[in-house]
Amino acid sequence: MREIEGGVCAPRGFRAGGIWCGIKAGSRKRDLALIYADTPCVAAAMFTTNRVKAAPVLVSQEHLAGGILRAVIANSGNANACTGEAGLAAARLMAELAAGEFAIRPSEVAVASTGIIGVPLPIAAIESSVSSLADSIHPGPAGHEAALEAIMTTDTRKKAAALEIEIGGKALRLGAMVKGSGMIHPGMATMLCFITTDAAISRELLDRALRGAVRRSFNRVTVDGDTSTNDTVIVMANGEAGNAPIVSEGPDYALFAGALETLCVKLARDLARDGEGATRLVTVSLNGAVDEAAAELLARTVAASSLVKAACFGADANWGRVLCALGYAGVDFDPAAVDLRFAGAAGEILVCKAGAPVPFSEEEARKILSQEEIEIRIELAGGGTGAAVAWGCDLSYDYVKINGDYRS
Amino acid sequence: MREIEGGVCAPRGFRAGGIWCGIKAGSRKRDLALIYADTPCVAAAMFTTNRVKAAPVLVSQEHLAGGILRAVIANSGNANACTGEAGLAAARLMAELAAGEFAIRPSEVAVASTGIIGVPLPIAAIESSVSSLADSIHPGPAGHEAALEAIMTTDTRKKAAALEIEIGGKALRLGAMVKGSGMIHPGMATMLCFITTDAAISRELLDRALRGAVRRSFNRVTVDGDTSTNDTVIVMANGEAGNAPIVSEGPDYALFAGALETLCVKLARDLARDGEGATRLVTVSLNGAVDEAAAELLARTVAASSLVKAACFGADANWGRVLCALGYAGVDFDPAAVDLRFAGAAGEILVCKAGAPVPFSEEEARKILSQEEIEIRIELAGGGTGAAVAWGCDLSYDYVKINGDYRS
Repeated sequence: MREIEGGVCAPRGFRAGGIWCGIKAGSRKRDLALIYADTPCVAAAMFTTNRVKAAPVLVSQEHLAGGILRAVIANSGNANACTGEAGLAAARLMAELAAGEFAIRPSEVAVASTGIIGVPLPIAAIESSVSSLADSIHPGPAGHEAALEAIMTTDTRKKAAALEIEIGGKALRLGAMVKGSGMIHPGMATMLCFITTDAAISRELLDRALRGAVRRSFNRVTVDGDTSTNDTVIVMANGEAGNAPIVSEGPDYALFAGALETLCVKLARDLARDGEGATRLVTVSLNGAVDEAAAELLARTVAASSLVKAACFGADANWGRVLCALGYAGVDFDPAAVDLRFAGAAGEILVCKAGAPVPFSEEEARKILSQEEIEIRIELAGGGTGAAVAWGCDLSYDYVKINGDYRS
Repeated sequence: MREIEGGVCAPRGFRAGGIWCGIKAGSRKRDLALIYADTPCVAAAMFTTNRVKAAPVLVSQEHLAGGILRAVIANSGNANACTGEAGLAAARLMAELAAGEFAIRPSEVAVASTGIIGVPLPIAAIESSVSSLADSIHPGPAGHEAALEAIMTTDTRKKAAALEIEIGGKALRLGAMVKGSGMIHPGMATMLCFITTDAAISRELLDRALRGAVRRSFNRVTVDGDTSTNDTVIVMANGEAGNAPIVSEGPDYALFAGALETLCVKLARDLARDGEGATRLVTVSLNGAVDEAAAELLARTVAASSLVKAACFGADANWGRVLCALGYAGVDFDPAAVDLRFAGAAGEILVCKAGAPVPFSEEEARKILSQEEIEIRIELAGGGTGAAVAWGCDLSYDYVKINGDYRS
């Protein structure tokens, strides 16, 4: 497995582009993206668990029912959520407009939106620009970059990756882009993620691989505990790598699923690192729970605690808050059997043994916690083998600043 | 029912006091409190649901099993949580020391602590000061005030109340003090609350009344989603009002339970208003859910949303975040049947009708949301009668500041 360049355009047979159509009226930043596959793809997707689902989520769920996609059209600057029937009509029209440019069926187009909730989508701006968007798509890294820019909102970093693996002598490629910074919480994070691959794989196994990868990546990220109305992860596979199609759970599937999970974990970490206002990536790793589900819930609860996050911002080794968060995770464990360490590039320090304080150097702890990447290592000495990792970020003044007046 | 002065000393037969014993080493603020009943009281209590329970919680749970209390000893500045066997021994010693001063049984003394987690309790400071503390107790408002000051941590306001009701021609009094500012979340909020009453009531009904009152008050407050290790609510009833003992669920019980709930709701609102860094009290009222439990969960989820809280701080009418939070509350409802209003002293404004945007004046909305008390009014047009109110506060820079380096 090796990292390659090109994001969603790294796999063969995909083109992408992004333009400014006028939704982000003030900034003139790109706000309309298209990813296009030259041939039909089997596709799988996962959407927000929020009961209030944005119009594009509802439309994409319908379109994905067919299992075949040719394109994804996405806009930033407006979430097209809580926009009633007009919003639903606008989301449908987005798919129709994209389909019209390539003479494909609207049901082969997925739609995604991200941005402000509760404001009518300026669909006229999209309508008048969709031809330029279609003309702009490109099979190289420039196409990927333009599309990626066009789905970003409060993101401060471009988040994308591509991998190449070899299966049966054929090189398979996977590429992905993701956006997301606020409204990020497991189940799923507030995010759009588009993944392309030239693997030949059945729709069923593509779906299974996606669910496994998302469970151990995006669903273990938290920024602020708010699960968005628009979360969408879509993977499209066009089979152009020419591998013997993956249709059962053998070694080929394991290789592919492993690569997909690696890709998603990288992007999940990037999401946490780029959390709104974040100054640090916080990794919470937990071992010794009764099973993986318990470990995941414990690790996620620590990563989501406002008090733990604020302590990380202040580089304050206030480990009692970690124990406190474990205690309200809703999972049984022995509070007197918890060991706790802070770790990072600057070293590792034990701060709590068997649930009780141990003497440690505050100076050394502060040094470790002042790094841009820190880890909270939790060991439960209960004899269980459940382990999980969750990712979050610190809670800073800038989170409040960004969200105190997001709309203006 | 009328408000009276004197807090926990308003009911007959209670004395209280508070001193500085040295736990708050730097500030020399009061840090050790005692509430004492001249005669044995029936008592009821509720404690944190956190699996990591502080030593004083474990000790008080044991002592409350007997159902009779004479005193509560409480310290601030150190939570005596995550402190192992030594912490448990210290909590037991606190009860023994207080009992020794009054020749009562240690099991008749409840213990509570609040402050930093994971630091050994400086029990020697308490040991050498407990006699002065016992000498300082007073039956008047000054005793109440001193005790109240001695349980405060990051609290910026004194939170206390007292009520008088009449039952069968007898005046019954209830008095309470509460502390809490951060680590506040339903089930229960991070808080200590001590309630006294001179009502004559059976232990069973006192317990029932307390559970009902807490459910509709403290369990509907959220500041930061962190449920503490030390939450404690204790009520002591000494029967000195001379009313015919309340031993069954008739009108007398209803009056008493109503007064207790009124007292707790007032203090719950005070907790939210004094949330760490809070600049506004945010009341979320919700009508039309399938039942009260659903209404409560929906209202609490909105009050707990970091994004809603940050929007309140910025006086930004970003109502989509309210719908988004409703959507992930885990309760079924029709997103297309939600009406939403912002209200307060400056008026009321409809911002969302049937789940879709309605035109409104941003200027007027900002005026309403700029007040110190604001209300988010949610109507679900589903035909249900479930209603609930939850209280929270905004998320400000100061929350981050206070919690970024709490220990220094």
